[in-house]
Amino acid sequence: MKTVVLGAYQTKFGELWDKGLDDLLLEAVQGAIEDAGIDKRKIEIIYIGNKLAGKLLDQNHLSALLGESLGIKTPSVRVEAACASGGMAVAQGCLAVNSGQFQTALAVGVEKMTDLSTEEISSALMTAAGQDEQANGLSFVGLYALLANKYLDKYQAKEEDLAFPAIKNHFHASLNKKAQFPFSLTLDQVVDSPIIARPLKLLHCSPISDGAAAVVLASKEFAKSKERKSVYITASVQRTGSLSLAKRDNLTEIEASSSASQAAYQLAGVSPEDLSLLEVHDCFSIAEIVALEDLGICQRGEAYYLERNGEVKLGGRRPVNVSGGLKACGHPVGATGVKQVVEVYNQLKGRAGERQVKEAKVGLTHNVGGIGGTAVIHILQK
Amino acid sequence: MKTVVLGAYQTKFGELWDKGLDDLLLEAVQGAIEDAGIDKRKIEIIYIGNKLAGKLLDQNHLSALLGESLGIKTPSVRVEAACASGGMAVAQGCLAVNSGQFQTALAVGVEKMTDLSTEEISSALMTAAGQDEQANGLSFVGLYALLANKYLDKYQAKEEDLAFPAIKNHFHASLNKKAQFPFSLTLDQVVDSPIIARPLKLLHCSPISDGAAAVVLASKEFAKSKERKSVYITASVQRTGSLSLAKRDNLTEIEASSSASQAAYQLAGVSPEDLSLLEVHDCFSIAEIVALEDLGICQRGEAYYLERNGEVKLGGRRPVNVSGGLKACGHPVGATGVKQVVEVYNQLKGRAGERQVKEAKVGLTHNVGGIGGTAVIHILQK
Repeated sequence: MKTVVLGAYQTKFGELWDKGLDDLLLEAVQGAIEDAGIDKRKIEIIYIGNKLAGKLLDQNHLSALLGESLGIKTPSVRVEAACASGGMAVAQGCLAVNSGQFQTALAVGVEKMTDLSTEEISSALMTAAGQDEQANGLSFVGLYALLANKYLDKYQAKEEDLAFPAIKNHFHASLNKKAQFPFSLTLDQVVDSPIIARPLKLLHCSPISDGAAAVVLASKEFAKSKERKSVYITASVQRTGSLSLAKRDNLTEIEASSSASQAAYQLAGVSPEDLSLLEVHDCFSIAEIVALEDLGICQRGEAYYLERNGEVKLGGRRPVNVSGGLKACGHPVGATGVKQVVEVYNQLKGRAGERQVKEAKVGLTHNVGGIGGTAVIHILQK
Repeated sequence: MKTVVLGAYQTKFGELWDKGLDDLLLEAVQGAIEDAGIDKRKIEIIYIGNKLAGKLLDQNHLSALLGESLGIKTPSVRVEAACASGGMAVAQGCLAVNSGQFQTALAVGVEKMTDLSTEEISSALMTAAGQDEQANGLSFVGLYALLANKYLDKYQAKEEDLAFPAIKNHFHASLNKKAQFPFSLTLDQVVDSPIIARPLKLLHCSPISDGAAAVVLASKEFAKSKERKSVYITASVQRTGSLSLAKRDNLTEIEASSSASQAAYQLAGVSPEDLSLLEVHDCFSIAEIVALEDLGICQRGEAYYLERNGEVKLGGRRPVNVSGGLKACGHPVGATGVKQVVEVYNQLKGRAGERQVKEAKVGLTHNVGGIGGTAVIHILQK
C-alpha cells in the first residue's frame, strides 16, 4: 500500500477557552486543505476521529456538523476507538484511498475537553475501560500505575527512571509553538511533583487538552497530477486487545502494539533500525517506556536505559516524540493520532524548524486506545 | 463494486431488559458468523455501528469490548453518524472488502436504550441535531413535524394520510417474530392516538428499542471458495447534508437521500422500477412518505397515494418496509441500518417466511442520520 500525504495541519493544543469544537475542527480541516493546495471540493471522503463530543458536548453527529460549516456534502463519518480514534481516522482514510473508490480522503481528529471539570473528564475518559474496572473505581492513571509497578519490579528500574520521558518530551515541546506546555522541566521538578497513583506522579501524566489536527491523503495518481508525492504512508495497521487489564497475562507489554507494529514493519518493508523518528503514545511515562519495547526499538527491560542515556532525545540516535508527545504537546484525545502523523509528515518534509530531525526519511506513529484495547500504527516514508 | 453478503442475523428487537449491550452485540455477531458458515477467525475487520453507548452506558470502546467477548484480536472500529451509524458500518465494511486489503468484513449495529428514562433518551438522541435546535428545545418528532406540516400543506394531503405507513408497517411486523410490535393497527387506533408534535401522533412515531443486527461481507474470491455468492451489494453510497433543518431551503426533501440514491442507482446499474422491495428510514410516518419521493419511487407529492392504495404493501407492486420498518420492527438506533440489509438479504435468499416478497431480486436500504444530515443507501442484488 502507498497512500500519499498531500497536506497536514495542527491547531495549537492547550486550554483554548475561546474556541469551540466546531472552530477547532474547521481550523484543522481548512489548514490541511490549504497545505495540500487543493480545492475543498476535491476531498472525496472525510473521517473524523473523536471520542467524547457526544458524552461531554451533546454533539454526536460531527460528520454533518463539519459538512455544514465547511459548506460541502462530501461523505463523512466519525470513527471512535477511545484514545486511538485519531489514528483510526487516518487508517480508514488510507483504506478509502487504497480501495480505488476515492482518490482523496481527509482524516481529522478533534477533542474539546477543558471546559469541563476534572471529575467529568476523568469519568468520561473511563468509558474506554472495562465495566468492572470502571465499577471498581479505577482510573487510567491507576491502570497505568499497575504497569509501572510491575515494570519497575521486573527490570529493577528506579522510580526516578519514570521521569526521563517527561523531561525529554518537555524539552522537545519547548521547541514547538503548537505545544500545550512549551517549556522544559528539571528532574527535581518531576520527582518532587505530587503522587497521583503510585508510582506515577503528576508530571508523569499527559494533560487534559483542546485541539485538532488533520491530514489530506491521496492516491498516487491524484498526487502525480498535483506534482506532490514526496511522503507516503507505507503501512497502516490496527489491532485489538482485551478491553480490561484484568484479562491480560503480561503487564509489561501492550500486545496490540507489538502485533500491529510487527505487521506494519513487514508491510512497509522496514525494520525498527530504519526509523528516523517515532511519535509514540506517552499518555503516562510508563506508556512510552513500554511502547519502545513493544515497537522493537530495544530489548525488553532496556527502554529506560535509552531514556536515561538520551538516545531517544532530539540529536540522539532515534528521537521519540519530538513534537513533545502527549505529555507536553498535549493530548486532545481524538486529535492525538492524527497529530502524530502531522508531526512525522512535517519532519519528513524538512519543515519542523528548531526541532527538525536531521535526514529524517522514515517515521512511525503509535496511537493506543484505553489500556491497550486498540493500537494503530502508521509508517511514513519519504 | 460487488461485495458478497455471506451471512446475516438480527436479534429480537424490543424492550429487552434481561439483555445488556454486550449480550446483544455478541448474539448478532455470532449469529451472522454462524449463518455465513465460517470460522470467527476468518473475519478480518469489524465495523460497529452505535450511537449512544458512550453517552448512556459509559461504554465507548466497543471495538475492544467485542474483541474481548468474542475472543479475537481482529482490527475493529466503531463508526457513528447518528441514526445512520448502522448503514455507515455496512458502508465501511464494503469499502474494506473492495480495497482488496481485507477478504472479509463484519458489520454490526447495536443499541441498548430501554433501561433509561424517556427524558434521558430524548436528550441523548438530540445530540444528533444542531446546537441551535437543541438549545431551542426542539426534539426529533418536532423537527419531523415541521416536514409533515409543510408536506400536507404543499400537496393538499390530509392528516389521515400520515397513518397509512404506520398501519402498513404494523401489518408487516405482525408477520415478523423479531419485531418489537408484532401486531396490526387500525386506522382509528392511529388517528385517535395522542398528539406528540402536531400533526405527528404517537402511532406515527418509531419506538425506543434494544437490539442488534450483523452481516458478514466478503470478496468474490473468498465467497467462491465457500461456494456462497448468491447475493451482492452492488452499490454503497453515503452523502452528508446540513446538520440543522434551519439551514435547508426545502422541507419536503432530504437532499442527502436524493443524491445518495441517484448515485447508488447509477453504480448498481438499476432504476427505481427494478426494485423488488425497499427498507426505508421511517422514524416517523412523514419520513417514509418523503423517502419514497427522494428515492424516485414516485413523483413529488404522490407518495401518500401509494401508501393509501396499498402499492407499497406486501403483495403490492413495490413493498416497502416488509420487516415492519423502524415503526413496528423497532429502532435500536445503531442497529437499524444493518437490520435493513439483513432483511433485504433474507428476502433475496427467499427465506423471509410469511412476509416473503415474491421473486425478490433487487432491494434497496435507506438509512438516515438526524434530520437528514447523513443518508446511506445500499442496493443488494441476487
